[in-house]
Amino acid sequence: MPSPSEEIRSTGGDNMNLDRIFHAESVAIIGASKNEAKQGYQAIRTLLDQKFEGRVYPVNPKENSILGLKCYSSVLDIPENIDLALITTPARTLKDILIECSEKGVAGAVVIAGGFGELGEEGKRLEEELVADAKGIRIIGPNTFGMINVAKGLNLVGLQNVPEGNIALLTQSGNIALNVITEANLKSQAGFNYYVGIGNEADIKFHEYLEYFTEDSNTGIILIYVEGLREGRKFLQQASKTTQVKPIVLYKSGRSAKGSKSAGSHTGALAGISEVSQSAFKRAGIIEVDHPGEMFPVTETLALLPMLKDNSIAILADGGGHATIAADYLTEMGIRLPELEKETRDKLCAILPPNASLENPIDVAGGADQNPAIFADCAEILLDDKNIHGLLIVGLFGGYGILFSQQLAFIEEDAAHLMGKLMESSAKPIVLHSLYNYAKPHSLELLRYYNIPVYDSLEIACKCIGALSVYGSYRREYGKESNFKLNWGSKAVSEGQEIIDNVLAEGRKVLLEYEAKELFRLQGAPVFRDYLATSADEAVSFAEKLGYNTAMKIVSPDIMHKSEAGGVMLGLKDEPAVREAFNTIINSCSDYKPGAEIRGCLLSKMSEKGIETVIGMKTDDQFGPTVMFGLGGIMVSVMKDVSFQVVPVSEYWARAMVDEIKASVIFDGFRGRPPSDKEAIVKLIQKVSEIAQAYPSIREIDLNPVIVHDQGLTVVDARVILK
Amino acid sequence: MPSPSEEIRSTGGDNMNLDRIFHAESVAIIGASKNEAKQGYQAIRTLLDQKFEGRVYPVNPKENSILGLKCYSSVLDIPENIDLALITTPARTLKDILIECSEKGVAGAVVIAGGFGELGEEGKRLEEELVADAKGIRIIGPNTFGMINVAKGLNLVGLQNVPEGNIALLTQSGNIALNVITEANLKSQAGFNYYVGIGNEADIKFHEYLEYFTEDSNTGIILIYVEGLREGRKFLQQASKTTQVKPIVLYKSGRSAKGSKSAGSHTGALAGISEVSQSAFKRAGIIEVDHPGEMFPVTETLALLPMLKDNSIAILADGGGHATIAADYLTEMGIRLPELEKETRDKLCAILPPNASLENPIDVAGGADQNPAIFADCAEILLDDKNIHGLLIVGLFGGYGILFSQQLAFIEEDAAHLMGKLMESSAKPIVLHSLYNYAKPHSLELLRYYNIPVYDSLEIACKCIGALSVYGSYRREYGKESNFKLNWGSKAVSEGQEIIDNVLAEGRKVLLEYEAKELFRLQGAPVFRDYLATSADEAVSFAEKLGYNTAMKIVSPDIMHKSEAGGVMLGLKDEPAVREAFNTIINSCSDYKPGAEIRGCLLSKMSEKGIETVIGMKTDDQFGPTVMFGLGGIMVSVMKDVSFQVVPVSEYWARAMVDEIKASVIFDGFRGRPPSDKEAIVKLIQKVSEIAQAYPSIREIDLNPVIVHDQGLTVVDARVILK
Repeated sequence: MPSPSEEIRSTGGDNMNLDRIFHAESVAIIGASKNEAKQGYQAIRTLLDQKFEGRVYPVNPKENSILGLKCYSSVLDIPENIDLALITTPARTLKDILIECSEKGVAGAVVIAGGFGELGEEGKRLEEELVADAKGIRIIGPNTFGMINVAKGLNLVGLQNVPEGNIALLTQSGNIALNVITEANLKSQAGFNYYVGIGNEADIKFHEYLEYFTEDSNTGIILIYVEGLREGRKFLQQASKTTQVKPIVLYKSGRSAKGSKSAGSHTGALAGISEVSQSAFKRAGIIEVDHPGEMFPVTETLALLPMLKDNSIAILADGGGHATIAADYLTEMGIRLPELEKETRDKLCAILPPNASLENPIDVAGGADQNPAIFADCAEILLDDKNIHGLLIVGLFGGYGILFSQQLAFIEEDAAHLMGKLMESSAKPIVLHSLYNYAKPHSLELLRYYNIPVYDSLEIACKCIGALSVYGSYRREYGKESNFKLNWGSKAVSEGQEIIDNVLAEGRKVLLEYEAKELFRLQGAPVFRDYLATSADEAVSFAEKLGYNTAMKIVSPDIMHKSEAGGVMLGLKDEPAVREAFNTIINSCSDYKPGAEIRGCLLSKMSEKGIETVIGMKTDDQFGPTVMFGLGGIMVSVMKDVSFQVVPVSEYWARAMVDEIKASVIFDGFRGRPPSDKEAIVKLIQKVSEIAQAYPSIREIDLNPVIVHDQGLTVVDARVILK
Repeated sequence: MPSPSEEIRSTGGDNMNLDRIFHAESVAIIGASKNEAKQGYQAIRTLLDQKFEGRVYPVNPKENSILGLKCYSSVLDIPENIDLALITTPARTLKDILIECSEKGVAGAVVIAGGFGELGEEGKRLEEELVADAKGIRIIGPNTFGMINVAKGLNLVGLQNVPEGNIALLTQSGNIALNVITEANLKSQAGFNYYVGIGNEADIKFHEYLEYFTEDSNTGIILIYVEGLREGRKFLQQASKTTQVKPIVLYKSGRSAKGSKSAGSHTGALAGISEVSQSAFKRAGIIEVDHPGEMFPVTETLALLPMLKDNSIAILADGGGHATIAADYLTEMGIRLPELEKETRDKLCAILPPNASLENPIDVAGGADQNPAIFADCAEILLDDKNIHGLLIVGLFGGYGILFSQQLAFIEEDAAHLMGKLMESSAKPIVLHSLYNYAKPHSLELLRYYNIPVYDSLEIACKCIGALSVYGSYRREYGKESNFKLNWGSKAVSEGQEIIDNVLAEGRKVLLEYEAKELFRLQGAPVFRDYLATSADEAVSFAEKLGYNTAMKIVSPDIMHKSEAGGVMLGLKDEPAVREAFNTIINSCSDYKPGAEIRGCLLSKMSEKGIETVIGMKTDDQFGPTVMFGLGGIMVSVMKDVSFQVVPVSEYWARAMVDEIKASVIFDGFRGRPPSDKEAIVKLIQKVSEIAQAYPSIREIDLNPVIVHDQGLTVVDARVILK
């Protein structure tokens, strides 16, 4: 029987304990210090400054009091139950401290010390010991910056001035957290309710925090900076539940080899292949941003604005430069700039100067120089157009009062009020770019009051509109398709399991081609019937069954590279050819590797012509079984034109994999060729996903090549590798 | 004989007139106004405010005086010579005004009015009239924002607070200029000497401004925003001269269809295919930035810092997050983060805490929390390493005094002095990212005093180091290869010209395959000898000459799609096959298009196996003849894995074209195949470039496919289209 603490742990999301951590009433600071540069001082200072609602108990055997608070020698001496301990002492002291904390009944511990998994395998072992020593105390970290509950003043980081709001911030880097919080302070009215430095995830994992913040009604949106995930699969499962109710914005670093190395030494997590994580995050409805500078703005926009109901918006500009650049960005993101209705154009025409552009992007062309309220008038006309679902205003708004005359500033303020109310009444989002943002004109402050975000970077304003589009599409279109649950062993066929068991019994890790194909055939995949011939006579009789034009390949567990061994002959058209081929192959392979165990030759029908593709499955370090699809030859290996989806791959995502590769148009009948059987690929991709789940001992599958015809496809070669 | 004004114009860079414009002593403001919102008011106000050194003459028949200056009815009434006229009146008034200006001997006119080439062909015609009416007065614009000489206070834009410096700013958008100037004001000590709103380039072209600013010793660097170039070829020629002495930074918009549309209505310039301009700009040594937000920072960095002597730098961080992200960016840009020398690591080890990372990126891991001067110590050690040629410091520097205690701010200031002097003594660039930049700590101001740029965006700091790397490579490595001069007619062969003349004489625009191949053969390209047979007997005798295994193709000016017409037969191995093929082709083509003029059949040797490539030439709207290279099939049409270079393509750039495509590794012997004859492609690309120059009437060339063998290559089909 598991111990009580193990039972709690096995739920994978012990909300009661997490709640005691994030809403701690009593906090022990173990390693409390009088040195102002130490976290053991700063945390106490900050808890006092921010009027933490609970009690603070410094622990340090060498001090009597710190910052006016009585200091205890041990957590055991504290005359009250302790919810949370902040431990700032070095790694070697942790064991004794955790034993005392456990005795005291502490719910959670924030462990600052580094020197664990971020340094390699030995460090990971130390982490396991740490968790064992903690005996059920939930641990944030180690190698963390700390945590904050802003509303309660429970701030263990020593960071001042964290603005309050509804964003939960989870990061694997203290300075990225600093970055985001500093930006919020400077440029926004949005703020945070929680901050967690995830650290090494030795105990509490990303998905557990995610579950907690999903259920927390004060959290409106979750912002994550991740270098690598310890339990990627559970993360995806939780994330896809979370994004059904609130958005997740994520930035992942560690893409380059050097970056990964640096990430490795930072949090001890494995940086994954970015293409795999990108497709998985997208499917889970996560908004992944490309640059760290986009993290906060995109989060703010999603927190404040309604999603786009359709991916078509209008751009409103004064002068062509900004409009041109914005149109470039939005088009690249797949957002449409539809034609305006005639009525809309007529109304615009009536109020704009003759040289204005009435086509989307709309250019007021100096029409605001004497009356910036024209922006509000145009906004109203544009959002009234049924083809327009959002508005991006770019350029100078907020600056007319600065550029021209003070009176115009008042007109801009009036326009801000009008646009603010317009956004509410129309329920269509408005995002504004202004190059006068830095000057903090009152009109832009008013826009923010109405929840219209204002950015000084045009790129970022476009990315923000883009995020409203992506999250809208997810919730409307593919949100119901984001299932990540693995059913190991589901749909396994007993004869299939037998093949695998036999291979393992023979001490092999690789299935022979005919075994692999048989496994696929048993699973109902469209694989030709192959025949294993052990003599030339048998070969001839099988070739007759196949109706000739056959391929013949050596079958030997000792020969990996069949062609190199002279073990492949193609296009055998009659009896003498088959007979001769059998003998040639056997002789050639025996010469190639004397003593090799030779089981015979595999006969199969030659594939008809078609498009060469590759379907594979590999076991990803972070996410487990993952299916890959691409065209054959250099398209996969050099052009990297491949798509990934983690198992299970539903029909929806299998089709997305086929459509997603750049070369996909080739299936639609490229240059006069007939269209290829895309649906057959979609089915085979699902089959690969099914087999990966059915037989958990499979590590890798490689169907290469798979020839796709006008009707159906042929799996020419199949390779299955076991764990 | 040309008129004197035409003679001046024909020099393509009339510096004397441009000098009278940019250093005008007397300026007429035609369309002067008392309305504060009009440029005719703002320009006068600004000239007075900024203490313009010369004389200002308002011109407006309806006013007696404006802002205390006497107002004239006509420019002819002004009692002094006029160097420059700012004309703010509408398009329809320009003709009369320019006639008066010409009579007055005005050197240049800034024409604000729009309604010209940006509206289409009719507008372009009006522009030509405008230039004709100006009779040699050089025109900036029309459709411009104006121009500024900052040092002289000659500011015709009405923009206040333009910071002075050595950057010449040329833009095709007023609000992009505003953007850049606003940013300089806010965040930098760098500034501008000139600003020019290029407008429609009706008269003075980009390359003329470029030439002027190249010769101007006060200009250190040129920053350009361009939507489209009217004379792209001349621009490249001048730019490649300019970048030998000073850098050019450029941002080009109008990449998307919508963006181009907006650009079209903005400046009336043609937005080109971005791949062509990218390769041309790179070859000219221009630093092209990807986002508008990079324009000013990259310019500032290049203006202030030495180039990288080698593309290898160190990253210095406090905490892993920023280091990881920076390593990602730099690696993607091709900048190396080399291993440190043992001596360097030992020195770092002696001063950094035990958990610090001594591998590049270097992480001081909290080692600065009590002593931020450690950044200066590390910087000195790192720049002393012979493998390290520059330093990027990321994260918190400037903020330790804010985060921890006021005393640390003084230590940071000391470190700033040390790093400033270190950059000077080492002659290696230092760029700093600080998330406390916005708080304007004194230490960061000190860094700027020493010309160390400081950015709050990590991406942008990386892009800036990247620009130092690119410009360094250009000046060291490929700067001497940037020749853009076209020698029309050079290396033309008289028999080649005869072929073209005959085609034109027959009223055709397309050369027949054998004509095209003959043209290439005459030019010394490695094209097999083909034979035109007019009877089956002739076909047989030619096939014998070729040694059989021949291809046969119909020759008819009336049949474009030879295969479709049944006009192609391949792999003919003996006499009966050749004889039958001839008759079949002739009959089939006669059926396909009754009455078609049939000249016979072309016989050629079948190509051996190899890699299928395409070499083409097209006439680019902005840059003229441009050579394209890529792999055959979907690699060009779907994957767009192609490279471009404008003619003339030297050996260096021909090789760059081959190496530049993603699939290029295939030539090195992909998966066991022998390497292909890359040098043969390099030679053929140069040959295509040579032919494009030799025969100016050629508009397009398409060699498709070109089969590349282990030794040599085969041009299977050739197509040449005339203008």
